[in-house]
Amino acid sequence: MAVSLGSTGPDLELARQLFDELRSRTGGEHGITRDSYGPGEQAAHEIVAAAAEANGLEIRRDGAANLYATLPGRDRTAPILLMGSHLDSVPHGGNFDGAAGVIAGLATLAALRRANRFPAFDLTVMGIRAEEAAWFDASYVGSRAAFGSLSQLEIDGVRRSDTGRSLAEHMVECGADPAVLRRGERFLTPDRLRGFIELHIEQGPILERAATPVGIVTGIRGCRRFRNARCIGAYAHSGAEPRNHRSDAVAATVALIARLEAEWVALEAAGHDLTFTVGELYTDPALHGPSKVAGEIRFVLDFRSLSDATMLHMCDHSHALAAELGRHYRVNFDLGETLFSAPALLDAGMRRRFAAAAATGGIPSIEMASGAGHDASVFANLGVPTGMIFVRNAHGSHNSKEAMDMRDFAAAAGILFDVVVKEAMS
Amino acid sequence: MAVSLGSTGPDLELARQLFDELRSRTGGEHGITRDSYGPGEQAAHEIVAAAAEANGLEIRRDGAANLYATLPGRDRTAPILLMGSHLDSVPHGGNFDGAAGVIAGLATLAALRRANRFPAFDLTVMGIRAEEAAWFDASYVGSRAAFGSLSQLEIDGVRRSDTGRSLAEHMVECGADPAVLRRGERFLTPDRLRGFIELHIEQGPILERAATPVGIVTGIRGCRRFRNARCIGAYAHSGAEPRNHRSDAVAATVALIARLEAEWVALEAAGHDLTFTVGELYTDPALHGPSKVAGEIRFVLDFRSLSDATMLHMCDHSHALAAELGRHYRVNFDLGETLFSAPALLDAGMRRRFAAAAATGGIPSIEMASGAGHDASVFANLGVPTGMIFVRNAHGSHNSKEAMDMRDFAAAAGILFDVVVKEAMS
Repeated sequence: MAVSLGSTGPDLELARQLFDELRSRTGGEHGITRDSYGPGEQAAHEIVAAAAEANGLEIRRDGAANLYATLPGRDRTAPILLMGSHLDSVPHGGNFDGAAGVIAGLATLAALRRANRFPAFDLTVMGIRAEEAAWFDASYVGSRAAFGSLSQLEIDGVRRSDTGRSLAEHMVECGADPAVLRRGERFLTPDRLRGFIELHIEQGPILERAATPVGIVTGIRGCRRFRNARCIGAYAHSGAEPRNHRSDAVAATVALIARLEAEWVALEAAGHDLTFTVGELYTDPALHGPSKVAGEIRFVLDFRSLSDATMLHMCDHSHALAAELGRHYRVNFDLGETLFSAPALLDAGMRRRFAAAAATGGIPSIEMASGAGHDASVFANLGVPTGMIFVRNAHGSHNSKEAMDMRDFAAAAGILFDVVVKEAMS
Repeated sequence: MAVSLGSTGPDLELARQLFDELRSRTGGEHGITRDSYGPGEQAAHEIVAAAAEANGLEIRRDGAANLYATLPGRDRTAPILLMGSHLDSVPHGGNFDGAAGVIAGLATLAALRRANRFPAFDLTVMGIRAEEAAWFDASYVGSRAAFGSLSQLEIDGVRRSDTGRSLAEHMVECGADPAVLRRGERFLTPDRLRGFIELHIEQGPILERAATPVGIVTGIRGCRRFRNARCIGAYAHSGAEPRNHRSDAVAATVALIARLEAEWVALEAAGHDLTFTVGELYTDPALHGPSKVAGEIRFVLDFRSLSDATMLHMCDHSHALAAELGRHYRVNFDLGETLFSAPALLDAGMRRRFAAAAATGGIPSIEMASGAGHDASVFANLGVPTGMIFVRNAHGSHNSKEAMDMRDFAAAAGILFDVVVKEAMS
């Protein structure tokens, strides 16, 4: 920890209170639901804003209703150091995904404010909107909006998966101003940022299996996803339609997925970085039946890699297989549009500073790639020096069993605190 | 046609009226729905009973509320000739599946009644309840109930897939008496039946492709079905969970289905009779997501064959693959119970008489196996001489596009009429 502050560190009691309040206000029977630009995310923003104000930080919001809590620096015109993460969650997710990064930043600034230590430049925690693509078919809505790069098509055309209403409509209900976003106004610009640090739970089980509390992230996998793929065949009687005359949407789609899995295994064996996932696959409950050949099935194809070339290969391969298998099974595949988020490499200087702070604090850490996408990739791909600190968690993420040990959080937040103090106050 | 009746035949105008009335009272936007022991089937029974009474036939109902419309014979103690089919439909099915057999019988008896021709023995049309297993996980409920062979477990334990309420509850609402069925009372006994004839639309496209209006059925495929199979894995983040640590329910189930399809292709190539269908396959909409590895998927495995040995082989193979792939993919398959209906061979004498009538009438016909299950198999497996006449129809069955040309119906009903007259009146 920074010597100048003696035994101080991030305000872990505040962090505990905030995690508890988030759980009690956004949790339910099947886990945590903080719906993007909906009541769940809004509650999280209210909780965080209230805590920031109570701890003497300045509050601002941009046109997308992202939240900024600032500990003012001595030079308020100098580029700022930003930290934070998103406050939304997937449906029925966990309490720590996203929120941990906002709370770690708040615990850091609150501790500094209480100690009456003022940094050389502004230190700001950002509570980011709408990171989880489960709600809107668009990636990193909040962070991209802050940089003025959300398209009008997205603002007015993308609809929330559960309500069917547009992003703009949902934004207005949460105090955002879509007109500002439509004009492409930038609340953040890369040249005004000396860096961005996102602390986040690790979403896979790599740290847990390595028995290591903290990960220092080297890069973030991008994603190319066929979000609304479907296969159209023809309903028929299961016992009476011969195989060579069927247009079986299930059989064709099973063949497509099996072939894509085989390609994944082959690419992995050749050393390529890739994940392939079909998280949704469903016949139509209004029309399917136990004695019917399925006439339709819907599904998602999700590809992630540190290499866009690898993802593009899988997209091309999907189209080629869909054409080939469509002929073979007498069905029509409609893979639909792809959702894209670019892979990102993280800042080498940040990584060195995280590693040094971990070593100083006696905290075991490993370097690793991020399999999941993060807002940090938006900052990194705009040229902002960007770093990510991962915290070990059990049971993966995007599920209600996600679990982070507060001792691991304390270790990771301690690294954040140390690096921030060293950069802003030494 | 029978010479003794001059130019008469089945009452095709009555048939047209009945098809129209059924369509108007049980049809909707997505086709025909005559739910077993529900308002749709009940409406069909009311329509048929009213027409039978209006045409001077005797009406009776058994403890399962099956309907019997009888043209009395000169000897009312002699074994009777029964004809008919079921009056329920799958959800969003077609108008002719089942109903055609009841209407053909009614058109035959109504024509004979109007001509004041009385048969040597009773001729009875049966409107059978609950043939479609889409509603209750039990096969041939109505016809088995008529023979007193419905188990108490089925009567009180099987629940309708949409309402969740028991067969007994639904039966009572339709005027049936489950107490009679629980006691195993027999309304029909094989020794009181000289035969059973079921006219039915062909449910595959074989007659259509052969450009032939009528099929004479040699046998009926049985069915063994895992109705409530599921695979349990673990939800995880799609980009962050490495392949060799996933418990991906979709990947495992895709592999299972692909392997079963390969076995089907191999058995078919070796000359075995078999169909394999996965008509329902769905991840949980409350818990799945585009960026989640799927932790659960539900599905149906449906096997049909003229050979029970072939079906048993596929069931055994399913269990073996589930164990093998469960280990490989770190998931648990729970295939659940199987629903069984036995294959049946149809009566050779009936087949000859149908063929002779078709030849006399100049009606093209072919012999063929039935891919779908039918109530006729219950009668055949109890030793009742049983025959089936198939009518060509377009677009398969169990879907709203099912279509039968009334000229083809007239041809098939003409064969039924001729065979009945020849047997009962010559």
